[in-house]
Amino acid sequence: MIYLNRESNEPLYEQIYNQMKTEILSGRLKEDDVLVSSRALLEILGVSRNTVNTAYSQLIAEGYVSSAKRIGLRVKKVPELKIHKKTIKQKLKEIPDEPESSFDIVYDLTNSSQTSSLFPKKLWRKYTIECMDILSNEAKLSSYQDKQGERYLRKNLLSYLRKIRGVQCNEEQIVLTCGLQQSLDYLCKLISFDQHSLLMEDPGFDKAAAVFQTNGVKIETIPVDHDGLIVSKLPNYSAIRAVYTTPSHQFPTGATLSIDRRYKLLEWAERSNSFIIEDDFDSELRYYSKPIPALQSIDDKDRVIYLGTFSKALSPSIRMGYMILPPALLHCYLKTFELYNSSVPLLNQYVIARLIETGNYERHIRRLNHAFRKRLERFTAELSDVKDKVKLSSNGSGQYFLLTFAQDVQQTQLIDRALEQGVRVYSTMQFWQEKADCPANTLFLGFGKIDLDDIPDCVARLKKAWHEWL
Amino acid sequence: MIYLNRESNEPLYEQIYNQMKTEILSGRLKEDDVLVSSRALLEILGVSRNTVNTAYSQLIAEGYVSSAKRIGLRVKKVPELKIHKKTIKQKLKEIPDEPESSFDIVYDLTNSSQTSSLFPKKLWRKYTIECMDILSNEAKLSSYQDKQGERYLRKNLLSYLRKIRGVQCNEEQIVLTCGLQQSLDYLCKLISFDQHSLLMEDPGFDKAAAVFQTNGVKIETIPVDHDGLIVSKLPNYSAIRAVYTTPSHQFPTGATLSIDRRYKLLEWAERSNSFIIEDDFDSELRYYSKPIPALQSIDDKDRVIYLGTFSKALSPSIRMGYMILPPALLHCYLKTFELYNSSVPLLNQYVIARLIETGNYERHIRRLNHAFRKRLERFTAELSDVKDKVKLSSNGSGQYFLLTFAQDVQQTQLIDRALEQGVRVYSTMQFWQEKADCPANTLFLGFGKIDLDDIPDCVARLKKAWHEWL
Repeated sequence: MIYLNRESNEPLYEQIYNQMKTEILSGRLKEDDVLVSSRALLEILGVSRNTVNTAYSQLIAEGYVSSAKRIGLRVKKVPELKIHKKTIKQKLKEIPDEPESSFDIVYDLTNSSQTSSLFPKKLWRKYTIECMDILSNEAKLSSYQDKQGERYLRKNLLSYLRKIRGVQCNEEQIVLTCGLQQSLDYLCKLISFDQHSLLMEDPGFDKAAAVFQTNGVKIETIPVDHDGLIVSKLPNYSAIRAVYTTPSHQFPTGATLSIDRRYKLLEWAERSNSFIIEDDFDSELRYYSKPIPALQSIDDKDRVIYLGTFSKALSPSIRMGYMILPPALLHCYLKTFELYNSSVPLLNQYVIARLIETGNYERHIRRLNHAFRKRLERFTAELSDVKDKVKLSSNGSGQYFLLTFAQDVQQTQLIDRALEQGVRVYSTMQFWQEKADCPANTLFLGFGKIDLDDIPDCVARLKKAWHEWL
Repeated sequence: MIYLNRESNEPLYEQIYNQMKTEILSGRLKEDDVLVSSRALLEILGVSRNTVNTAYSQLIAEGYVSSAKRIGLRVKKVPELKIHKKTIKQKLKEIPDEPESSFDIVYDLTNSSQTSSLFPKKLWRKYTIECMDILSNEAKLSSYQDKQGERYLRKNLLSYLRKIRGVQCNEEQIVLTCGLQQSLDYLCKLISFDQHSLLMEDPGFDKAAAVFQTNGVKIETIPVDHDGLIVSKLPNYSAIRAVYTTPSHQFPTGATLSIDRRYKLLEWAERSNSFIIEDDFDSELRYYSKPIPALQSIDDKDRVIYLGTFSKALSPSIRMGYMILPPALLHCYLKTFELYNSSVPLLNQYVIARLIETGNYERHIRRLNHAFRKRLERFTAELSDVKDKVKLSSNGSGQYFLLTFAQDVQQTQLIDRALEQGVRVYSTMQFWQEKADCPANTLFLGFGKIDLDDIPDCVARLKKAWHEWL
């Protein structure tokens, strides 16, 4: 029997459906039993034909009953007493949250966030509204986009990269991705590593290494010095299929690969049939001299894969990057990813294209560089009275610097003492594949997320924390 | 000698830098030659100290010269005559554009776009502006987001999925991705396929098959009938590690997996230590009965991986989807992807969370269902006079139907004839792994991108095109 509660928020058809289902699952209604006809039911219950039909269609759709000609709805065979009543079990071992420091963090000297004031909020809003209208009018708002990224963006990006980074390519060679890691994920599928290895600078970017490892690519390392990757140590055999490098701003040492080494690296790649993955992550952010042309710009053998991102120049929350593929890999990409959709929201692509097209992107970069230069200079000035005890290294680009202590001291000790004073600073350990090679007395400090006026107080806290070594 | 052109747009420091570089690369300045001192140069040229310093720093940064104590700047060894003058070569074989049809397409009956009017533009704009302010105030606009997706979105999404799809999980189990294909890409790395295969419904979603193939996963197939995947044909051995299935709306046949088969599939998965990948791509879009609870909702053995997307319910241009991982796979995900960043823009996550939280998402879904129901009914009505010759199949969900002709006729012939009348219709061939099993006389027609009022004209054109078989 079905009881309807007309005061309930649950719609009438749903009450009928649920009670019928329970009858079947509990075995009170058995296989081949015939349901009361919909006409009879609506009279018994005093509900509309539509209400009964909706309940019955749902039961049919889910396979509890089937319609048999001249008989009506007949119960199908379903497993007994299987109604799912479990409450959510706490099977998940507690996922540990970030170990909350017991100290209040006043300043976080991270390299992976920026103060919100640096984001071009007004322009982003303006172009979002504008582009939504354009896309709507062109009936593109609700379509899949070009899987390599919209031509409108690729055209504008290319003319920007030509001008600022000397990049030489066609817009057909550009593929938009949702960031560096997806670019690398794709490359792992395009470059046939098989038993071959990838060569990484040591130290290098740990989040890039993670992608290669996740994709089962074997990593070998090559050391760097003040001129970047030491090309004389490139292996003479051809067990390497690709080199991942940050030539314009070695991460994290800050070295710039010299022009001589650039040519040698390109020659080596040609000779050993290897690709060069050039990660140009923050090279627009160079505030003293103009940006150094990309390695890609002097590659006439099509060995360089150029990777860029908007994470540093706009915001890491945008999730957009790009790769420029040499022709051989482009053909492989078009084949391998033929049925893949783009991974980048259409509207964001349009907004960034508009930013570049209007020149606002370049103006924004200049504003960023100005802000970062001021911050770096303030740190340098505030630390000038202890410069014999601690050396600040930066090549005048990006948004971080390294601090090296003259005395022997462990990173962990420095980090803990700084935390006690409310400042979070970072280890350099994670950038080293060979942990033993990591200098114990060098720290990694970012200034993306600290306002200029806070720097004196921040440095005062650090000096207090580290007075033993200063 | 350096010649400065003060009328040029090129800044003075750049003119100095460029001419010095040319001197070096052309060999006129040789290794170990010493550059004229900056003080001398600024006097000769009558420029500021800053101008000369900028030019010289750039030459140092790029490795053309190095600073030697008490000597000044000395030219380093660089390869001769390597200056890169290539114009962009047309090495790229012309990438063929979509073969442009010589006919004007008036109506495109695609399943992968929607009319722009269906997108909740006003709400999207409103919440974009609102959320940008919130994120900016919380200093989150320029940070990396939670790699699984923001908790604010996961909380709201979960309470929506509980209500509409019966999904049972914790918000910790949800991982936001940039769409179905990335979800599958990730799963290929989480499920240890090794020599094992994945089982797919035949016919099934070709773009899912493409991801498995790209990841080197071997595919076996299982047939479907009017009750969905035929569970009696599930293999009895355990060479299968996962089944990819669309139980609530079999793609493309439209069948719903019956409740009996659902339990059998779950039991089989438990027995053969296999996962079930439930792709619930458009099950909110069910316009007659209420959506059928997800397979995940009756899984008490944690075998089901639930996949969803906003491509159908909001827009494919949003690029956002999600997966709900059973606990065992979640732990594996946290380990494997520990250093991966989220792939979904932060702002979009907030906007969708707001849409759900305010109830506007559900209202939007109802509006969509209403629009789609009207469109399907209009097609049905317009084709009712030829229903003996051509059968329309739909299970009242999603935004497409199948058309099956009574007479023998080839799909290509039907497609070409429709094109001549300005209507693009689609083959079903790509959904079949076993091409020979694909019925030649069945077409795939989407109604996402056609306005209600255009349907009569569209059907009139189709009738004209296909008069031979109607």
